[in-house]
Amino acid sequence: MNHSDDPPRPSRRRLLAGAAGLAAAGVVGRARANDANLPPNVASWSKTLGDGVGVRPYGKPSPFEKDVVRRDVQWLTASRESSVSFTPLHDLDGIITPNGLCFERHHGGITEIDPHDYRLMLHGLVDKPLIFTLEDLKRLPRVNRIYFLECAANSGMEWRGAQLNGCQYTHGMIHCVMYTGVPLKLLLEQAGLKTNAKWLHVEGGDSSGMNRSLPLHKALDDCMIAYRQNGEMLRPEQGYPVRLVVPGWEGNIWIKWLRRIKVGDEPWYTREETSKYTDLLENGKARKFTFEMDAKSVITSPSPQVPVKGKGFLVISGLAWSGRGKVTRVDVSLDGGRNWRTAKIDGPVLDKSCVRFYAETEWNGQELLLQSRAMDDTGYVQPTKDDLRKIRGVNSIYHNNGIQTWAVKPNGEVENVEVG
Amino acid sequence: MNHSDDPPRPSRRRLLAGAAGLAAAGVVGRARANDANLPPNVASWSKTLGDGVGVRPYGKPSPFEKDVVRRDVQWLTASRESSVSFTPLHDLDGIITPNGLCFERHHGGITEIDPHDYRLMLHGLVDKPLIFTLEDLKRLPRVNRIYFLECAANSGMEWRGAQLNGCQYTHGMIHCVMYTGVPLKLLLEQAGLKTNAKWLHVEGGDSSGMNRSLPLHKALDDCMIAYRQNGEMLRPEQGYPVRLVVPGWEGNIWIKWLRRIKVGDEPWYTREETSKYTDLLENGKARKFTFEMDAKSVITSPSPQVPVKGKGFLVISGLAWSGRGKVTRVDVSLDGGRNWRTAKIDGPVLDKSCVRFYAETEWNGQELLLQSRAMDDTGYVQPTKDDLRKIRGVNSIYHNNGIQTWAVKPNGEVENVEVG
Repeated sequence: MNHSDDPPRPSRRRLLAGAAGLAAAGVVGRARANDANLPPNVASWSKTLGDGVGVRPYGKPSPFEKDVVRRDVQWLTASRESSVSFTPLHDLDGIITPNGLCFERHHGGITEIDPHDYRLMLHGLVDKPLIFTLEDLKRLPRVNRIYFLECAANSGMEWRGAQLNGCQYTHGMIHCVMYTGVPLKLLLEQAGLKTNAKWLHVEGGDSSGMNRSLPLHKALDDCMIAYRQNGEMLRPEQGYPVRLVVPGWEGNIWIKWLRRIKVGDEPWYTREETSKYTDLLENGKARKFTFEMDAKSVITSPSPQVPVKGKGFLVISGLAWSGRGKVTRVDVSLDGGRNWRTAKIDGPVLDKSCVRFYAETEWNGQELLLQSRAMDDTGYVQPTKDDLRKIRGVNSIYHNNGIQTWAVKPNGEVENVEVG
Repeated sequence: MNHSDDPPRPSRRRLLAGAAGLAAAGVVGRARANDANLPPNVASWSKTLGDGVGVRPYGKPSPFEKDVVRRDVQWLTASRESSVSFTPLHDLDGIITPNGLCFERHHGGITEIDPHDYRLMLHGLVDKPLIFTLEDLKRLPRVNRIYFLECAANSGMEWRGAQLNGCQYTHGMIHCVMYTGVPLKLLLEQAGLKTNAKWLHVEGGDSSGMNRSLPLHKALDDCMIAYRQNGEMLRPEQGYPVRLVVPGWEGNIWIKWLRRIKVGDEPWYTREETSKYTDLLENGKARKFTFEMDAKSVITSPSPQVPVKGKGFLVISGLAWSGRGKVTRVDVSLDGGRNWRTAKIDGPVLDKSCVRFYAETEWNGQELLLQSRAMDDTGYVQPTKDDLRKIRGVNSIYHNNGIQTWAVKPNGEVENVEVG
């Protein structure tokens, strides 16, 4: 590994190469601009009153941002029984995902639950079985935490080689919001655990009855019964009114429309942890209960959906996360992993949350092979795809956290590629 | 001041008084519930496939949350020339405001700017005047920060006494999101400041041409040229595509639809900092350039719009913030300020950001006079309304950070009141 702690910095002179002097304003974008709106003219929108009488009860994005949307891959899953849409990571920055753009994964469509009829059952190996209404849950002590949620199948189509052209599709089954909810530990304490309690069976109220086995130690550690995301109530597609939050673990176990928690002494071996959400190895055996999402990262810009627009100063931007704890460092390579530089992590660095990283460079039309590599506070380093395949083979769908490569072409276009 | 560091805690037995045993499920909410959906029955929504074929490009809140909206006060401002809508603080938790619910304040309606035609001019006492397109700005190094934005007129209707019944109206001109943008310092360095540069004139592209004078030291400290909020591009009503972020300072100077920055050697004394956004004192003199938002807090639940539903364990929840830095402590009183207990601050504590606080109690139908009091890391303590009036009089509209009082009645209803 060739690691440079002192990457070349762009000259300050070139930093603003894109910005023009007053006399030659607006070179970038000129082709599409309306001259009448440009300096020294006063723009049309400054001459007339804007919209906005009274109240706009709930705001929407600008019509000019109509392409910043969740998207699906038609051939992958597009039925009411199994559907998925991907977060437009390439069109976002920072670490918070706006609620309207959080990816979706449904196994029985989006369930609509009347909050007055919502109930959460807690039973099994407990002293006192309980049923909670939504109002009951909202009256309890609560906590607020920013966590990433990644589907175990994120990047799952890339096991056998570069396939989908855009980080929205290769890495878009992740989002990161602030959850508000009740610590699961609190509910379990109230019900009173029997001494032989070891596992929980958690079940959704959707038509698939999505259900998984959750080890008690995790439930007592940091799991939440969440009813809010980014301040407001959960969105319908995220499990309104209540979902389970299992920080750092695969999204499938973050049961949406949560209806039941049963305490037992061993795992249930449900369909979703035997036939699905296990990792088939080369020798035909399958890893099971691989809950934790390993450290991972992706460069979101430039990427296939956001090519490089013109030569000059370039900020490489991306996301990194680890289900094991905090991201401590992200490295970026411009040459497919031969040389690395340490990226700048900007903004809050929180446990089991996304971090935003940036690396600056000059781009003069040369071909680049962009990669990023995350490290976490356990010392874990994100592996190359090849190193991952040596251990895991290519039969798996889940838990692909290999290093992603984007090739930047001389014309600025970007492509999903594999390197040696 | 009688400060109790060891408030009485609710008994664990009573903590879940609202939760029923399996045999008597769902007492709370029963009146509105449909028995057919309640345990031991399988709910209707679990028996049929949910909605969700293909893609939902941009998600929306549940239809059951249709009352969680921004609202205006008709008699206050409801014209295209001057409009305002308030954040529903009583219906939120945590510290992040979802983009669709951030309060609005317009002086010339909501300006619609074609991002291709957008230009930012930077001129005056600089070596090299510059014009930036949106693409220019997006190519530059950027930072991500969670900041609160409070209108100087927030709580302005309360100077002469308790008036508006709901924290949405008394305190709802605040929101808190993650901004992404270019440090203003970077643009100023590129233009090159003349030695006599001291102030900036910042101007919006809206029809009111909103404009203010900004001291250079603040511009060089932490101001941002922001184009994103919570990851996605700014909402139209928040200044799409570019607004100024002036952390901790009154919202009026966070110029939306930012079109021009002129560097000068003294303030401009614009209408918005002479006739408006100055603080008229009892003696007829006015304080000017009172930029900083002092430490402040409000209990968001219970509050007039969210009464207490039934006796038993009660979590008092609220927001606190300070334009001077970090909130270090929040105290809560149940008896109108005679006795205080320290609230628990939960979630990230960031500079010039909101924090969420909680205090727990038992409510058995007794009358309460709820108050909260914020302290920041400069040692500043939020004053009572009366102490504030002694210094400021009641002629002002702006910068009212007095302690708010909610009276909880025996029937659980909550009212905005004044105490002693």
